[in-house]
Amino acid sequence: MSNAATINTLQTHLSELKTLQSTLSLIQWDMQVMMPPAGAQGRGEEISLLTKLIHERLTDPKLGDLLDELSNTSDLNEQLAHGVHNMVLARNRATKLPTELVRNIADAESEGFNAWQIAKKEDDFAAFAPYLERHVSLAREKAARIDANANAYDVLLEEFEPGARVEKITPMFQRLGAELKVLIDKCRGGTAPQGLAGSFNIDGQIALSNAILPALGYDLNAGRLDTSSHPFSVGIHPGDCRITTRFEPTDLLAGLGATIHEAGHAMYEQGLPLDGKNAGWGDAASYGMHESQSRFWENFIGGSHAFAQWLAPLANQHLPGHNFTTDKLFGAANAVNPDLIRVYADEVTYNLHIIIRYELELSLISGRLCVPDLPDAWRERYQHHLGITPPDNAHGVLQDVHWSGGAFGYFPTYTIGNLYAASIGAHLTATMPTLWEDVAQGQFGTILQWLRTNIHSKGHSADAAQIVCDAVGERDHVADLMDHLWGRQGALYNVKKA
Amino acid sequence: MSNAATINTLQTHLSELKTLQSTLSLIQWDMQVMMPPAGAQGRGEEISLLTKLIHERLTDPKLGDLLDELSNTSDLNEQLAHGVHNMVLARNRATKLPTELVRNIADAESEGFNAWQIAKKEDDFAAFAPYLERHVSLAREKAARIDANANAYDVLLEEFEPGARVEKITPMFQRLGAELKVLIDKCRGGTAPQGLAGSFNIDGQIALSNAILPALGYDLNAGRLDTSSHPFSVGIHPGDCRITTRFEPTDLLAGLGATIHEAGHAMYEQGLPLDGKNAGWGDAASYGMHESQSRFWENFIGGSHAFAQWLAPLANQHLPGHNFTTDKLFGAANAVNPDLIRVYADEVTYNLHIIIRYELELSLISGRLCVPDLPDAWRERYQHHLGITPPDNAHGVLQDVHWSGGAFGYFPTYTIGNLYAASIGAHLTATMPTLWEDVAQGQFGTILQWLRTNIHSKGHSADAAQIVCDAVGERDHVADLMDHLWGRQGALYNVKKA
Repeated sequence: MSNAATINTLQTHLSELKTLQSTLSLIQWDMQVMMPPAGAQGRGEEISLLTKLIHERLTDPKLGDLLDELSNTSDLNEQLAHGVHNMVLARNRATKLPTELVRNIADAESEGFNAWQIAKKEDDFAAFAPYLERHVSLAREKAARIDANANAYDVLLEEFEPGARVEKITPMFQRLGAELKVLIDKCRGGTAPQGLAGSFNIDGQIALSNAILPALGYDLNAGRLDTSSHPFSVGIHPGDCRITTRFEPTDLLAGLGATIHEAGHAMYEQGLPLDGKNAGWGDAASYGMHESQSRFWENFIGGSHAFAQWLAPLANQHLPGHNFTTDKLFGAANAVNPDLIRVYADEVTYNLHIIIRYELELSLISGRLCVPDLPDAWRERYQHHLGITPPDNAHGVLQDVHWSGGAFGYFPTYTIGNLYAASIGAHLTATMPTLWEDVAQGQFGTILQWLRTNIHSKGHSADAAQIVCDAVGERDHVADLMDHLWGRQGALYNVKKA
Repeated sequence: MSNAATINTLQTHLSELKTLQSTLSLIQWDMQVMMPPAGAQGRGEEISLLTKLIHERLTDPKLGDLLDELSNTSDLNEQLAHGVHNMVLARNRATKLPTELVRNIADAESEGFNAWQIAKKEDDFAAFAPYLERHVSLAREKAARIDANANAYDVLLEEFEPGARVEKITPMFQRLGAELKVLIDKCRGGTAPQGLAGSFNIDGQIALSNAILPALGYDLNAGRLDTSSHPFSVGIHPGDCRITTRFEPTDLLAGLGATIHEAGHAMYEQGLPLDGKNAGWGDAASYGMHESQSRFWENFIGGSHAFAQWLAPLANQHLPGHNFTTDKLFGAANAVNPDLIRVYADEVTYNLHIIIRYELELSLISGRLCVPDLPDAWRERYQHHLGITPPDNAHGVLQDVHWSGGAFGYFPTYTIGNLYAASIGAHLTATMPTLWEDVAQGQFGTILQWLRTNIHSKGHSADAAQIVCDAVGERDHVADLMDHLWGRQGALYNVKKA
């Protein structure tokens, strides 16, 4: 076949695969947001059938032949070449695992999830340990099957952060951890800003979220906002990217932060390139890149003084009687509180929670740490990085769902996202003279346009790190993040780098 | 293969087919109720892929072999034998039509729909006529391909009302039409009851619907209520049967009627037999049977004096200030107003709208009537049956969407449903001594249980007419319907049969 004909055949094949994936995303969204309880059994059958049909198309030998042929072609454009590369990796993960291993992993996920729920409730790590041991062993086997010659953790990482490697992440995280410790210790000596106490009308919170979303640039014509206990976003198709948030009567910023965070994810999906959709490069570049978009909007923009300036009158309009001021909102959004629970962590301490998990995952997968010793190692790491020790395992090693499903390699993408977001923020600050004036006036169009052009529309046409580098130049992500945090929380606490 | 092994293989095959159909139902519901506008293109791709996958499974020669084998087996139980029969018919419709004809029909549907929308708006029948002519010709070709030896209209009818035949329907409809005319003419001379004028708070209407639904027996644990401009119901799976309704500020009964009507459909779906799901007999028996369930609840129960007695205090609770009384609600629900538009028609005149359409469809398909003469024929029939003539085609022959999609054979199922509902109602009145006392107290459990046992749980294990006959005995449906209408609207207007 000619190149053009092969590409055409590939696109037809991938079109079915992508359409099945879109359908799966939609029915999973429905399951979490709309489905009545008794629908669970039927939904399980639908999800399992779609998963099977997707797997069949991914492992179809015809797709393998097409990818082989295109992999050996030198004159593909860069986007398509990377698309072929992405598909080869995805296909490897689907074809190299024996059916029995796939089934074992699926069983371990559902059994592990159930065991974890009970263990967390009863603060009983020993009851969960065998499930975690099974996950560690299955993860090692999975990595070896996919690529026996590579570092096992690198192989696991590839599923979430294609192109990332331990040898690059570890030194970055070590440096970041050490530098964060200095800032946090100084903030401990500073004066903490006041929180936002009060009872916030839910209808007012909804109206406020609905006023903020279109201003940011989230296109409600291609999305919708619902509520769920765990906020999430889903990109069914660039024309249908939905978000959920949650509203707490006594915690205004939790809901507001979730709305802006999920809008960041969804605006990325709304901006993905349609022409890459059936060519292997139309998806998000990585989990880290996704998180960079949500955290950029939630923290870099949403936590800024300029944003608080725009937000205050809007919040007073929708939630009258609270006398929101710029400084109150800004202070409450940027308090630094070293605490035990990751999901409640502030912008500064959050990355230490991630670094701890990354270090522990690396040790578990490499075999330097065995599961029974994990709670001790957890306590030691929390004491080392954050200066606190959990009173029990429920508030320690059992707090997160991720390990119950054996999702090793997922956690680091949160901090990778924060690092990318920091460099994007630093670049915009340096190149957009009216950035903060725009934000203070609720004008986010120039910012979104820059993201559309330099990040969103690139899809997965290169590894995330490369896309960021093309967008902002060669930058020191750790320095960018630390400069940002010293400049924001450091200034708020009136502390300075030595 | 042994019978058991063949049945097992059939069920596995049908399981995928049914699961794909469930998924399709869900994403179509989402399209109408939840999807943001820009999602349309992606949704089109998903619907078209699922439709293709369903078609592939239905036309798979392996399924044909399994059905052949089981069709020639004499010792299947009755349910499964009918399930095989159903699947053979469904497969015939899928396999006997050449791809080009299927494509032509699909094109004619979408082009016809667009043309109809414009023609209706501009009251221009001539602009729509060529599309309708194409539909008539395609419908004839389709019928001939499926079964060249059968009456073409019977073949079309089979898709909506399996087992129904023109030779049985026509005399029933003729008798019904003549008898309705007598009742309507008498009502014209009687005193019309008062309508329900007022402005009804939408939140109150929603609360009222939500109070009525669980009382009727609609399981909100296996369903949900939303709003849409055209109310509808969808049975994704017996555990997930959703309904939509609409609320009009000045027309309380429109929304209430829609809620009860759709709940009737959905309660049928919630009661379908799970053990028939993958054996060809787990679906609804026919469109007419479906409509019998919605109309039974909407009219026979919902329009009764006893129901109004239960409803009045509930309506006063949720919509205070209107002083609803049993007689006001009962009267407003049962006014008889010969009018031009089918969808606004009352219980008595409704069937004449259907009979007219049935007569005209028969004439079009048989060739006795050609499309350019249709508006004249329409006017003549409306004058004959209802004594009124539309002032233009927009309020006449162009009012309904059905013909724009070439759905010949659909209309009669509305009246078939009313006839079945009447016989079910007559049977329950005769055999349940406390029927109306129960209704007046909002106790619908015994009624629903009877429907569950005698109608819902039968699924499609026999033709609808047979299921009704097994449930209520050999009854004269026309007599049952006319007795009901004389007893209700006749009594309200204080008129008597000669």
